[in-house]
Formats: sequence, structure tokens, C-alpha cells
Amino acid sequence: RYFHFCKVPGRVMGIRLLRFTSVVIIVLLLVAGALTALLPNIKDDKMPNLRREPKTQSQSALDSFTLIMQTYNRTDLLLKLLNHYQAIPQLHKVIVVWNNIGEKVPEEMWNSLGPHPVPVVFKVQTVNRMRNRLQNFPELETKAVLMMDDDTLVSAHDLAFAFSVWQQFPEHIVGFVPRKHISTPSGVYSYGSFELQNPGFGNGDQYSMVLIGAAFFHSGYLEDFQRQPEAVYALIDETQNCDDIAMNFLVAKHTGKPSGVFVKPVDVRNLEKDTNSGYSGMWHRAEHLLQRSYCVNKLVNIYDGMPLKYSNIMISQFGFPNYANHKNKM
Amino acid sequence: RYFHFCKVPGRVMGIRLLRFTSVVIIVLLLVAGALTALLPNIKDDKMPNLRREPKTQSQSALDSFTLIMQTYNRTDLLLKLLNHYQAIPQLHKVIVVWNNIGEKVPEEMWNSLGPHPVPVVFKVQTVNRMRNRLQNFPELETKAVLMMDDDTLVSAHDLAFAFSVWQQFPEHIVGFVPRKHISTPSGVYSYGSFELQNPGFGNGDQYSMVLIGAAFFHSGYLEDFQRQPEAVYALIDETQNCDDIAMNFLVAKHTGKPSGVFVKPVDVRNLEKDTNSGYSGMWHRAEHLLQRSYCVNKLVNIYDGMPLKYSNIMISQFGFPNYANHKNKM
Repeated sequence: RYFHFCKVPGRVMGIRLLRFTSVVIIVLLLVAGALTALLPNIKDDKMPNLRREPKTQSQSALDSFTLIMQTYNRTDLLLKLLNHYQAIPQLHKVIVVWNNIGEKVPEEMWNSLGPHPVPVVFKVQTVNRMRNRLQNFPELETKAVLMMDDDTLVSAHDLAFAFSVWQQFPEHIVGFVPRKHISTPSGVYSYGSFELQNPGFGNGDQYSMVLIGAAFFHSGYLEDFQRQPEAVYALIDETQNCDDIAMNFLVAKHTGKPSGVFVKPVDVRNLEKDTNSGYSGMWHRAEHLLQRSYCVNKLVNIYDGMPLKYSNIMISQFGFPNYANHKNKM
Repeated sequence: RYFHFCKVPGRVMGIRLLRFTSVVIIVLLLVAGALTALLPNIKDDKMPNLRREPKTQSQSALDSFTLIMQTYNRTDLLLKLLNHYQAIPQLHKVIVVWNNIGEKVPEEMWNSLGPHPVPVVFKVQTVNRMRNRLQNFPELETKAVLMMDDDTLVSAHDLAFAFSVWQQFPEHIVGFVPRKHISTPSGVYSYGSFELQNPGFGNGDQYSMVLIGAAFFHSGYLEDFQRQPEAVYALIDETQNCDDIAMNFLVAKHTGKPSGVFVKPVDVRNLEKDTNSGYSGMWHRAEHLLQRSYCVNKLVNIYDGMPLKYSNIMISQFGFPNYANHKNKM
């Protein structure tokens, strides 16, 4: 072949060579272009789902938390709260559990008002269940969950401090709302707050639960919750209540210690009154507290014992908000 | 031999037999008596140095604490405080470190005013040293030490609560007096309290030490203190100060965490003004605070680094003294 080429007359060979080298060069350029396009973007290596990451600080799994907020019939409050919570430092992502069955999520409006500091995911539910918020969401990437009721406004200061406390007590529910159970001579338990008698371990009061409607806890407990006995799900569905009591039973049983650590809130507000929806929240139902006592006793049956333990530890932030708030009266 | 006995006449054998059996019986009784005396008293197994234990509640090594109180030139305050502290629940024993060199301990008076709820041991010192209270006293039987200055009155409520907190944080110094160090651009450290700038980790203040003049800590740290470098003893002796800063360095280095846990005091009083001795305490010396900054820097040299860590956790007792003291303003 080679020799065959050499035998072709000079001019013809020149044109053919030119054509040949041109084709080779073009092919090489195309291949190079294709390779460049296929090379992975360095940022995409770290967070395959995000492009053009706007955050300046690192949001590793341990240093940030995911807000899970369930919402029903109070979209005006939800949106007001989202404007506040989306900007909390160390927040990684928001998961909105949409219990407004059949109603479209406000995703279009949300996107039209972007960009937003963090991703917000709207999880459409098929049935309006209280325990929908306790699913093990695949979007959950952080070790810490912040669970918040859709009518509760907790200041950024309170959240930053409570998150730092959770990091020191990661196996506990660290939050702002303490409750307790008391036992009675009949063996029947009652649920309540400071208005109930003290459990009688020395002076002062005790708490045995921290409600999850304003609290940090480990995402592993959502995994654990998927393995609860059917009777627990049935109880929560029957009452549309008590998912938080059930979580405290789960955590107490798991740790053998008090389930919660109470952080005294500085500025926590309930925005119920501010809604235009006319909907005022489950705890206004007449039977609400009686239901919760009922749930405590049912859970003791299911658990074949009372795993809740008492604590009287109340944690506040040293030197905040009051300069030298630790000075005693002497 | 046996047959030899049989050959002796009947009456002689009878008397010899009687004598023999009597001797055997007496010897057996003596042996039995000796064994009974040597059998360990069940209570003494737990506390070998106590007999006729008058306490009604068990005072095992983990459920009680030893008060160590060093005293110099304020015997009137000491005795006033002993009347209070000797009755604190869960107190096991009091060790008074007697720094009044050459002066007789008030043991006679103390005994004449008995009985007392717990044993009080007066440890006569040969040299008036600040660090005398940090010896590993052989009389110390409990895991917990309560160290108290001889002019500080802490209420029983505060002590009971702080002890329960210590039991949850046994590797920390749990007490009522928080202090901090701050670093400066020059690298030189300063010692102080709320009046110094915040170390700048978020809002509010931080503390990096809890002073041992009103605190619980693990008795193991007294053992550890005996193994400190000579330079530490020299520093404390030179300044007659800073033994508490040295202990915080020791604990922080040991745990890799903040050395102390601050419990907000409800009723802690300083009785200095009440003494008739005219002696008013080391902290009134003009150079006191400057000395303590000096000590921090010297200890950083000795430790070849700064082991102290910051904390902003302030612990209070839930529901005490104010019913529902956890309710926020909303």
C-alpha cells in the first residue's frame, strides 16, 4: 500500500494527503471536545445533586441539621415560618411534609421567589396522618433533625444554642417543651406538665419527655421508628396524637436514660392566632390531654413496662441574652 | 497408746477423760470465739474504718461525698459552716485541712458538742500551703469530693442538685463559680470573668474553668494531682494561689473537654464579712487577679499548650425554687 501511494503522481498525492490530514485533525478535535464535556465537574463530585453551590461554609453531615416541618391547613403560617427558618445558620435542608391532601404544594410560588438559602423539599402525602413526619425520608442527609410544628417560631439564637447542646447529647431529644408522666397508686399513669404534682424525687419538678414539635434529635431514630410494633402506629392513627410520646418511649428504651434534655427557651412564639385559615391546632381539642394520658398507658402496655425516666436538668446559655446572667443574688 | 489407756484402772480413766474432754471443749469454744471475732462485719466490708454506723440510709462510695474544707485564720467561720455542712444529705465525712500552723485543732470542743451526724477529721498541717487541700487523704473513701472554701455557705438545695449533676458528669468539676481565660493577639493569656470580652464563639459568654472552692469533683483527680510536675507545685507555692486553675488544667488535659460544668447557684453566700478574725481572704490582695493571669501563662508553658476548653452550658434545677421556672415569656 505504502509503495502503492508512492507510485501515484505527485499532485494527486498532495491533495489526498491534505484531505487525509484535515480529516484526522477534525476527528481529533471532535474527540477532544467530547472528552472535555464528559470530564466530571469537581464540585459535582462532592454533592451530586447540587450544582453551583452557593454556600460559603461547609455543611457536613455532623455540623448541620435538616428541618422537618409537617403542615396542615396553615399554609400562611408555613410560608411565614419558612422565610425565617430557611436562613438559620447550620441548616442543611428543609423537608415540608404536606398533609394537605389533594392540594397542590406551593412549589411554583416558592421557586418564583428564589433563590433560597437552602433546598426545600415538599413531600406530598396521600393520607393526612400525624405520623407522616416520622418517615425515614431519603432526602435526609444529616445526622441531626430539627422537628418543628408549623405554628412555632423559635429564634435563631435559641436554635443555634440548642443545636450545640444536641451535639453534646446526640442520643437525646434536645428541645424546648418538657412534659412529664406521673404514676398513681392504682398503677394508672397520667400525662401533664408543671400543673401536675411533682414525681417526688427531692424538691423541684421533673420532666420525662421533651416534645418533638420543637426539638433536635438524631436521624437514626427515624429509622428506628419504622420498626415499631404495629400497635404503636395504630395508636397514633387512632388518636391523631401522641407520635411525640411514642418517640420519647422509643428513645428512653433505647438509651436507658431520660429521653430528653430540656433547653430553656429565650424566645419561642406560638403563631396559631396569626393564621387566616381558622384552623387552630390539635391541642385545642377537648380530649387532647386525656388522649395523651391514654396514650401513655397504652404505650406502657405495648412496651410491657415504663421506659420513661425523669430528669430535672434545665440548660440555659451562659451569658445570653443577659450579660452575666449567671450572677447569683449574693 | 490406745490400748495403753484401756489398761489404766476405771476411775483414773474417767477423770482423765473428763479433763481431756473439758479441755477439748474449752479449746473449741475459744477457737469458735476467735473465728467469730475475725469474721468480717458485713458493713465493714464496704467501709472498713467505721463501726456502729449510725446512718439510716446507705452511704456507698458512689452515693455520697466527702467535704474537704481548708481553713486559715477563720475558725469562727469554720465552726459556723461545719454546723451547716455536717447535716447535708449524702455527706459521708468531713476533712478539715488545718492550716493554722502551731495552733491546736478544736477537737476537744468538737467532741464535747457531739454527737455529730458524720465523722469530722482535722488534718494538722506543718506548713501553711494553699495546695494542702489537694493531698490524697487516706481518710477519703468516696468517689466524690466536695471542696469548699472556709467562707462560703452553699444551701443544701444547691448542694443536693449539684451532686446529682456531678453524678451525671463525674469526669468534670461541677460547681458554682465559672471563670474564663481569653487569648490576645500577642499570644499572652488573661484570666477573668464576665467583665472580660467574650471569647467570640457565637453570642453570649463562655467559661473555661470552674473554681474548686465550691465544687464537686472526682477523688481520682487528687491522686492525679500528686503526679504533677514540680513546676506546678512551685507555682502554687510561689503565689499561694492558682491551685484551682492548676486543677482545671489537669482535668481539661485528662478529658480533652471543658473541665467544668457550671451549675447556677440559687443561694450561695460569702461569709467573709462575718468573721471576727479580721482576716479577709486571699482574693482581696491587690495582685490577686494579675497573679491568676500569670498562673495561666505559666501553666501553658508547663503543659506546653493550652488544654482549657470553652463551654456555655449553664445548668439549673427544673421547677426549683420557682414553680414552673421553665415557662418562657410567651
